[in-house]
Amino acid sequence: MNDVESRMEAAGITLPPPGAPKANYRLASRVEDLLYLSGHLPIKIDGTLCTGKLGGGDGGLTVEEGYEAARWCGLNLVSTMKDVLGGDLSRVSKVVKLFGIVRSDDSFDQQHLVVNGASDVMSEVFGEEVGGRHSRSAIGANALPLGIAVEVEAIVRVVGP
Amino acid sequence: MNDVESRMEAAGITLPPPGAPKANYRLASRVEDLLYLSGHLPIKIDGTLCTGKLGGGDGGLTVEEGYEAARWCGLNLVSTMKDVLGGDLSRVSKVVKLFGIVRSDDSFDQQHLVVNGASDVMSEVFGEEVGGRHSRSAIGANALPLGIAVEVEAIVRVVGP
Amino acid sequence: MNDVESRMEAAGITLPPPGAPKANYRLASRVEDLLYLSGHLPIKIDGTLCTGKLGGGDGGLTVEEGYEAARWCGLNLVSTMKDVLGGDLSRVSKVVKLFGIVRSDDSFDQQHLVVNGASDVMSEVFGEEVGGRHSRSAIGANALPLGIAVEVEAIVRVVGP
Repeated sequence: MNDVESRMEAAGITLPPPGAPKANYRLASRVEDLLYLSGHLPIKIDGTLCTGKLGGGDGGLTVEEGYEAARWCGLNLVSTMKDVLGGDLSRVSKVVKLFGIVRSDDSFDQQHLVVNGASDVMSEVFGEEVGGRHSRSAIGANALPLGIAVEVEAIVRVVGP
Repeated sequence: MNDVESRMEAAGITLPPPGAPKANYRLASRVEDLLYLSGHLPIKIDGTLCTGKLGGGDGGLTVEEGYEAARWCGLNLVSTMKDVLGGDLSRVSKVVKLFGIVRSDDSFDQQHLVVNGASDVMSEVFGEEVGGRHSRSAIGANALPLGIAVEVEAIVRVVGP
Repeated sequence: MNDVESRMEAAGITLPPPGAPKANYRLASRVEDLLYLSGHLPIKIDGTLCTGKLGGGDGGLTVEEGYEAARWCGLNLVSTMKDVLGGDLSRVSKVVKLFGIVRSDDSFDQQHLVVNGASDVMSEVFGEEVGGRHSRSAIGANALPLGIAVEVEAIVRVVGP
């Protein structure tokens, strides 16, 4: 068991199974040592999606619920990395960048706190040095595919073939 | 005639003329072997734009109309690539990533099917190996420049000077 | 004083102080000679934010006000670059790409003119050759963190350690 797997076990993190693209594209695309990961959905371990919109009162998700959704996006990103890297997450040498899009009511303005759910996953899984020093953007959107609450894409640096 | 041109001819694809930036930037920017393409508009062969918003009933565009708009974004991306690469599209060695933004009614949730219009163009023009293995994000937006229905940006890998 | 500093002095440009991330991430992340800059906020020299929404009539920001906000995003990006590059902005060899998100009323369609505020900063600070040849996307969003009017992220190429 490598450091990443030990860290996940200690933190009680179970990865969702690797997903399948929802349309005509791949979940990851590599150029030299950079892996470009597609916008990932918040798919829970039971296969259901975190849907809904942040803010707006009645029926709107709270920051905590949005954070949880972003966390699932992060875990699905890690699951794809593992799948692409032959099961060996220690081949991720740096999480370079995250881009998080939060489905928002017009009045919601805490997208950065929501996307922390994905950022925190990267630190927890890969450690502060490899996972916690990424750059990031967090924005709102009035609509997202399949009604999901959050979507997150990533660029990571990898070693090996 | 290279493979790419033959493939386009067989598929009956005619590229729109290369466009001009709508503001103070370039349509493409290169770093080593990566070409970063700006967000491209759905400009039809006659020069008009695909405008409108997906969903929302009366007056809203259908998924099919949105797909067609995304297709135009894709064809305009290819036209810019050709222009930048001295007319030789066989110098594109990999479509790395697309990012598609779909102007959406709050209730529209099929952005991924719309952005397929651009993904499909990449497969058709460059073949599955070079064009069809890109990563991708598809998101919604309540507003886009000039009222366009879809905007798509891309990163592609190229060979040669 | 290097060329960049002379150019800024001649143009009367004063950089805001380097900022701190609003959440769990870094303002910039480097891979080899590329620096990925996080989505930056329009923080004015006095520390206040440009908030509001473009368009929509009463209370909505004008294109000129949005341009000014995008300009502040650009200046904050430059301030982060300077901080990360040990104070030496002449180490920026190319502004590769900008991505600008404009908080917009549903009817606003001039995001490209707003994001020019950030593009123009790059030309003014780094000169046309280094700063003015970037690719770019400009999109709208119904909501942004802390109610800001514009957010801009960037990729720049740098030289040196």
